[in-house]
Amino acid sequence: MRILVIHGPNLNLLGTREPEKYGLRSLDDVNKQINEAARRLGLEVTIVQHNSEGQILDAIHDARTWADAIVINPGAYTHYSIAIRDALTGVRLPAVEVHLSNIHAREPFRHESVIAGVCMGQICGFGPYGYVLGLQAAQQIVAEANR
Amino acid sequence: MRILVIHGPNLNLLGTREPEKYGLRSLDDVNKQINEAARRLGLEVTIVQHNSEGQILDAIHDARTWADAIVINPGAYTHYSIAIRDALTGVRLPAVEVHLSNIHAREPFRHESVIAGVCMGQICGFGPYGYVLGLQAAQQIVAEANR
Amino acid sequence: MRILVIHGPNLNLLGTREPEKYGLRSLDDVNKQINEAARRLGLEVTIVQHNSEGQILDAIHDARTWADAIVINPGAYTHYSIAIRDALTGVRLPAVEVHLSNIHAREPFRHESVIAGVCMGQICGFGPYGYVLGLQAAQQIVAEANR
Amino acid sequence: MRILVIHGPNLNLLGTREPEKYGLRSLDDVNKQINEAARRLGLEVTIVQHNSEGQILDAIHDARTWADAIVINPGAYTHYSIAIRDALTGVRLPAVEVHLSNIHAREPFRHESVIAGVCMGQICGFGPYGYVLGLQAAQQIVAEANR
Amino acid sequence: MRILVIHGPNLNLLGTREPEKYGLRSLDDVNKQINEAARRLGLEVTIVQHNSEGQILDAIHDARTWADAIVINPGAYTHYSIAIRDALTGVRLPAVEVHLSNIHAREPFRHESVIAGVCMGQICGFGPYGYVLGLQAAQQIVAEANR
Amino acid sequence: MRILVIHGPNLNLLGTREPEKYGLRSLDDVNKQINEAARRLGLEVTIVQHNSEGQILDAIHDARTWADAIVINPGAYTHYSIAIRDALTGVRLPAVEVHLSNIHAREPFRHESVIAGVCMGQICGFGPYGYVLGLQAAQQIVAEANR
Amino acid sequence: MRILVIHGPNLNLLGTREPEKYGLRSLDDVNKQINEAARRLGLEVTIVQHNSEGQILDAIHDARTWADAIVINPGAYTHYSIAIRDALTGVRLPAVEVHLSNIHAREPFRHESVIAGVCMGQICGFGPYGYVLGLQAAQQIVAEANR
Amino acid sequence: MRILVIHGPNLNLLGTREPEKYGLRSLDDVNKQINEAARRLGLEVTIVQHNSEGQILDAIHDARTWADAIVINPGAYTHYSIAIRDALTGVRLPAVEVHLSNIHAREPFRHESVIAGVCMGQICGFGPYGYVLGLQAAQQIVAEANR
Amino acid sequence: MRILVIHGPNLNLLGTREPEKYGLRSLDDVNKQINEAARRLGLEVTIVQHNSEGQILDAIHDARTWADAIVINPGAYTHYSIAIRDALTGVRLPAVEVHLSNIHAREPFRHESVIAGVCMGQICGFGPYGYVLGLQAAQQIVAEANR
Amino acid sequence: MRILVIHGPNLNLLGTREPEKYGLRSLDDVNKQINEAARRLGLEVTIVQHNSEGQILDAIHDARTWADAIVINPGAYTHYSIAIRDALTGVRLPAVEVHLSNIHAREPFRHESVIAGVCMGQICGFGPYGYVLGLQAAQQIVAEANR
Amino acid sequence: MRILVIHGPNLNLLGTREPEKYGLRSLDDVNKQINEAARRLGLEVTIVQHNSEGQILDAIHDARTWADAIVINPGAYTHYSIAIRDALTGVRLPAVEVHLSNIHAREPFRHESVIAGVCMGQICGFGPYGYVLGLQAAQQIVAEANR
Amino acid sequence: MRILVIHGPNLNLLGTREPEKYGLRSLDDVNKQINEAARRLGLEVTIVQHNSEGQILDAIHDARTWADAIVINPGAYTHYSIAIRDALTGVRLPAVEVHLSNIHAREPFRHESVIAGVCMGQICGFGPYGYVLGLQAAQQIVAEANR
Repeated sequence: MRILVIHGPNLNLLGTREPEKYGLRSLDDVNKQINEAARRLGLEVTIVQHNSEGQILDAIHDARTWADAIVINPGAYTHYSIAIRDALTGVRLPAVEVHLSNIHAREPFRHESVIAGVCMGQICGFGPYGYVLGLQAAQQIVAEANR
Repeated sequence: MRILVIHGPNLNLLGTREPEKYGLRSLDDVNKQINEAARRLGLEVTIVQHNSEGQILDAIHDARTWADAIVINPGAYTHYSIAIRDALTGVRLPAVEVHLSNIHAREPFRHESVIAGVCMGQICGFGPYGYVLGLQAAQQIVAEANR
Repeated sequence: MRILVIHGPNLNLLGTREPEKYGLRSLDDVNKQINEAARRLGLEVTIVQHNSEGQILDAIHDARTWADAIVINPGAYTHYSIAIRDALTGVRLPAVEVHLSNIHAREPFRHESVIAGVCMGQICGFGPYGYVLGLQAAQQIVAEANR
Repeated sequence: MRILVIHGPNLNLLGTREPEKYGLRSLDDVNKQINEAARRLGLEVTIVQHNSEGQILDAIHDARTWADAIVINPGAYTHYSIAIRDALTGVRLPAVEVHLSNIHAREPFRHESVIAGVCMGQICGFGPYGYVLGLQAAQQIVAEANR
Repeated sequence: MRILVIHGPNLNLLGTREPEKYGLRSLDDVNKQINEAARRLGLEVTIVQHNSEGQILDAIHDARTWADAIVINPGAYTHYSIAIRDALTGVRLPAVEVHLSNIHAREPFRHESVIAGVCMGQICGFGPYGYVLGLQAAQQIVAEANR
Repeated sequence: MRILVIHGPNLNLLGTREPEKYGLRSLDDVNKQINEAARRLGLEVTIVQHNSEGQILDAIHDARTWADAIVINPGAYTHYSIAIRDALTGVRLPAVEVHLSNIHAREPFRHESVIAGVCMGQICGFGPYGYVLGLQAAQQIVAEANR
Repeated sequence: MRILVIHGPNLNLLGTREPEKYGLRSLDDVNKQINEAARRLGLEVTIVQHNSEGQILDAIHDARTWADAIVINPGAYTHYSIAIRDALTGVRLPAVEVHLSNIHAREPFRHESVIAGVCMGQICGFGPYGYVLGLQAAQQIVAEANR
Repeated sequence: MRILVIHGPNLNLLGTREPEKYGLRSLDDVNKQINEAARRLGLEVTIVQHNSEGQILDAIHDARTWADAIVINPGAYTHYSIAIRDALTGVRLPAVEVHLSNIHAREPFRHESVIAGVCMGQICGFGPYGYVLGLQAAQQIVAEANR
Repeated sequence: MRILVIHGPNLNLLGTREPEKYGLRSLDDVNKQINEAARRLGLEVTIVQHNSEGQILDAIHDARTWADAIVINPGAYTHYSIAIRDALTGVRLPAVEVHLSNIHAREPFRHESVIAGVCMGQICGFGPYGYVLGLQAAQQIVAEANR
Repeated sequence: MRILVIHGPNLNLLGTREPEKYGLRSLDDVNKQINEAARRLGLEVTIVQHNSEGQILDAIHDARTWADAIVINPGAYTHYSIAIRDALTGVRLPAVEVHLSNIHAREPFRHESVIAGVCMGQICGFGPYGYVLGLQAAQQIVAEANR
Repeated sequence: MRILVIHGPNLNLLGTREPEKYGLRSLDDVNKQINEAARRLGLEVTIVQHNSEGQILDAIHDARTWADAIVINPGAYTHYSIAIRDALTGVRLPAVEVHLSNIHAREPFRHESVIAGVCMGQICGFGPYGYVLGLQAAQQIVAEANR
Repeated sequence: MRILVIHGPNLNLLGTREPEKYGLRSLDDVNKQINEAARRLGLEVTIVQHNSEGQILDAIHDARTWADAIVINPGAYTHYSIAIRDALTGVRLPAVEVHLSNIHAREPFRHESVIAGVCMGQICGFGPYGYVLGLQAAQQIVAEANR
């Protein structure tokens, strides 16, 4: 089972950016954690990070031909990128939305996701561990669909 | 590590209630899955189901003296029970909000949770498996807090 | 044909509560009128009154095994109890929402019902006689569905 | 007791218009049902159907001199015709608002009626049978007022 | 100077309709008062009353060829008839909006006029005498424009 | 009959302030026109202009002991001075709200008056002539009340 | 292929009404252009203009028996006539909404159409030429449906 | 004079729950303070605490037969329990709403009380001492009503 | 302990202004009651009444140098005077907001106070007696802060 | 006459993406249809597709030096890209907004276009044929402007 | 070049008022800084501070006869004083709005200025130094206008 | 002191784009002005212009390692790019938001900046000179922070 993991805008700052909110680990550390979990779960993962909305669209489009599911942390785009919403609908792959912080405990404009409605589900508030949960969820969904 | 799992209103109908949305498994089946996951994770879980808001408050209050964390699916109360929100704040236990369905893909009034803002995070859309993810998330949070 | 009639919160005050709005007849009087109408219509009715949202949920759940339809006056819960809404959806019984007063002629917050959308229809403004109309409507619906 | 029954805009299409929503019976069939019910209830009914808001106003004005009550299905005008609202207030006749479909289960803009607030009550969701219930409700109201 | 006076929907009920709000005088009485004021002011007035939005449009269109100004009480259409707004803009005649009651002291939905914004001004709250003030205002406006 | 005329904030700028909106005549010119009209109508008028909300309150309070009615152009205070609203209610004198420009044709925040709801009525859009109409309206109201 | 073209309220003023917005050509000129285009496209068109909402309903109802599609410029009714919306849904004919001006570049209340949602599509901003585009679009839709 | 004091949901946690917001005293301590004040004021008080909305309704209903007034801290129910609002209206006893914290200085959703509008008044922000003020206010109201 | 009591706009009208809402006692009577309560409580009070927002600001600023707390009835300014809010924040004195009437039972625009959020608490609905409660509350707050 | 045709984000998925909404033809097929229509109409067209908002801005900027008009389907950017709106205003070229689907019949957030207000007009709902209509509209606009 | 600098309500508290938000310098210190900057820039400045809205209006009116520009910090009036907005429009002097704190980073009700829309521009967030920038901006504007 | 100056989308059009709003000077001219001011102020500036949101993020991220402050004109992104907001928060550099035009005097959707809340302050309405003021403000902020 192959899964595309997408880190959205500003996630390259991880570790330096507001550590009280996002923790002290760098994106590399997080990716290591993701890769380990993938290995444990028997998943092949490809991980990308893009600041550009257009590149995120391209990555989603590309996944259509090889991935079984997408785990995506759309970062700030969560709240306005209808384009990412449409890309996910367009490629018809099951997707899991992940957020490091609990977006429901932050500013009101972060409570609503324009993307979650076209994903299978949303996981937020558990830091980098949320990606691990996201991989499990994606695996579960694909397994159930194949049953 | 002891965890209280709370099933909110109408979850006793599981299996018979809108199976296209909530699946065919009964609450007993789901609880079996939760118990198995708990055993695997080395967690002690106590599971309750209440239709009454007041009884959910009582259960949360009671957990103060024995539980390390709460995994709660507040069902319909998610969207208006400020009392449950206050109970969770009041007992100062880490909580994880779980939903069977993806509430962000349903009616607009289900997009906002008045409770999520005082939980550690939210997991939704993965059916009964969401409880398993919720247990893992709770375990992770408590472990990190104890570090 | 068996029908569950549910009186919601505060309806036990009938006759003493704001008689200019709800009339002078007590709940017992109203229930007598309901029973007479039922007899005339050839319906078996069971009537309950609950102030607790949880008990109303229980009553609805219970009806699943024996009733053909529900006639419900959710009282103040009309305007916020998504839990009752979900219970009615969950048991998949046809329901008729009844109100003694014309909720559309009262405070704006009483104009919207979160429950009516999952009922077959709504009858309001005709005092206790509304229950009689509600029984007839329920009977009609069940008859048509059985045709 | 004389009652004016008003069918609002597009109701002449009944039977052909969205039968899954409004049923297969034509307006003539519905009127037959209304007339039979009226006969059974000992009521004199006059039935009109108008597509024009102005003609509905005229019909309401005219009723002032001969009718005891009005049963009105304002169709789409329900949601914006303050003029019909004012006409009903102006003639000071008790009115019952009837809808074939359950407007509370349709698009949000159909949930609010600008007319219901000046009627005695509202009945919706029971198809043509709603008119029968409306006649009964009107009869009840007039009888009570005359008591 | 020729002025068209338009009475909108339900104004034919004057005298009988909610006298505590609109006074006891009939439309004929009011028209007499308007005609007398017109004579005193040296104005030619044509007075029409229409319940139908379409007929009000026709009357406004027609005025284009003979009237110097319009005094209009759009009644309930005040609050939604963008068509009347467009008709007044279309004929490019100065118009004065008149209301018998003080619409700003009534239900919130009567506070906003979709028509007033394309009139020269608005006069409300002075009963039938408002028409007299409206004639004066219209006369003043036309006189100033001709200066 | 004695009438207090109140010019609100910035009206002392008349003639110099945005003449395309408020005309070229100074406040003195306008007051002359008011005084002439008063003489013609047999009214005693006292005219004040205040930029301070507090002074307008004082003027209204003072009128309680000697005036029969108030004609007030509250200027910008129209849209937020609940204090002026309360003062007018407090002195229980009939009041007429006058505006030089058509507030309904300007920025949306000028469409709603927090004061008009406690006045007898509103006249706007007719320049300084609006005060003349306002005097007439006030005279009419007082005369009717004394009848 | 037979197409009904409906011009809504105030369109009879074309050429005289706000020419800077709607151009200098009269409705007759526009109709000539429509007829020529129809001839070129091999379409039979019937053109009507109505100021009355009720007459527009009648025209739509009538089309049910003979037309293949409707091209409609609902004028001001675009923004509130749910009755026209329901008529179009009721007759189940494909419809194309046309506007002379670009409604999205005008007052906010003109941005939303209550009718467009039940049409096949909307064309606006191209003056009378929009009707020609509308005919083509209608032809295309019917052709595709018949394929 | 007999007064019912109702503590709403979560108030049993007092002393342990968010002490920086609600203080360090337990509910027992607070009740002692209430009882002492009652003795000093010559009032008989009965104090109850309920987490369940339904039980609060029952308590209010019960008071109808023996209490002169109600002092109620509805806790989180303040913001949505229209049922409690209706219960208070139903028993026609004067009520005083009390809050420990200043709800107007907290989250926006806590600024509006659906209950305060049917109470005599509201006291908030003064910690447990607010109950003492509430008793005094209730005593004053009843005394004045009996005068 | 020295306390500044501020009566806001229109309170000088007390006794004459809407007695059904504000009672029959004049401001002098109320001040007498306040002074007596102060004496009983061992408080020094200075009482001012101002109609002008600016003078209220001055009074608050002045209190900084001599008062221990402020009891303020901001009257209509409650709902829009952010300047008073800022003045109270600026002088850093504990303040108690008092209203004669129950503002939560009046027009919706009176439900929200822009000032209460920076006060210690709010007391409303108990007529002049509210000032007595306000003095007690202020005394309590200062005492606790000094503890 | 040279025209730039811009396909916005996700349009490269055409044919594979939600065919029930966007049809079965690929973007290449659609471009073929556009090129054929251009040839028939005597237009030179350049067609681009970009997923990146920035690249769409660049394309619009570039057109300033060579194009006579722009036909743009902004895809999801329609609903939030004020940057595209500003680019179109900035280059001062006439633009036509085209959508494959009828955006007014989809989710509410798709009803409003932040771009349409600075275009000449909008065409939506006619599938790929909408581009052909768009070319004609652009041609017509440029021709009229050059007249 | 002569410039009027207006400090609005509560600015006399500077240095004592919320120093963490507004700094430790008194208004005198700030005025010294303003005067020094003016000298350096070759500007004549007159500085006033008023707590009363009416006095601010008077100061603005007065400036009409002698000032070239106004630099104004309207304090709390920023958010509701349409009267100050109208005064600035009325005197037709270029104005610069200055705020010590970054109003866009504070409570939502401080984000919108009813005054900024009629100023040349806004400067906020830079403490007293903002006045220096404001003087420069005013000088630049006047210089450009005179070019 | 090193400062990054960022010009957002469409600013490359300066001089050609809506000169009545943005002036006649090209971006090169503006940059010359910025560079001169920087020299005068003893600042090192790096200036970039990007149409792509992603590239703006990259530029902000990059500044983390070398810049002391950022002066940013986010153009249209001001109103929706939460990603830029997060980037500025992420790099923890003081930022100054600059706009050429007075955004508070333009369309309502331009009044709110999603970015200003995380900047030190905002300067708008002074054309290219705003960048000079922005540099000064940035210099002042950094100097104060280093004190």
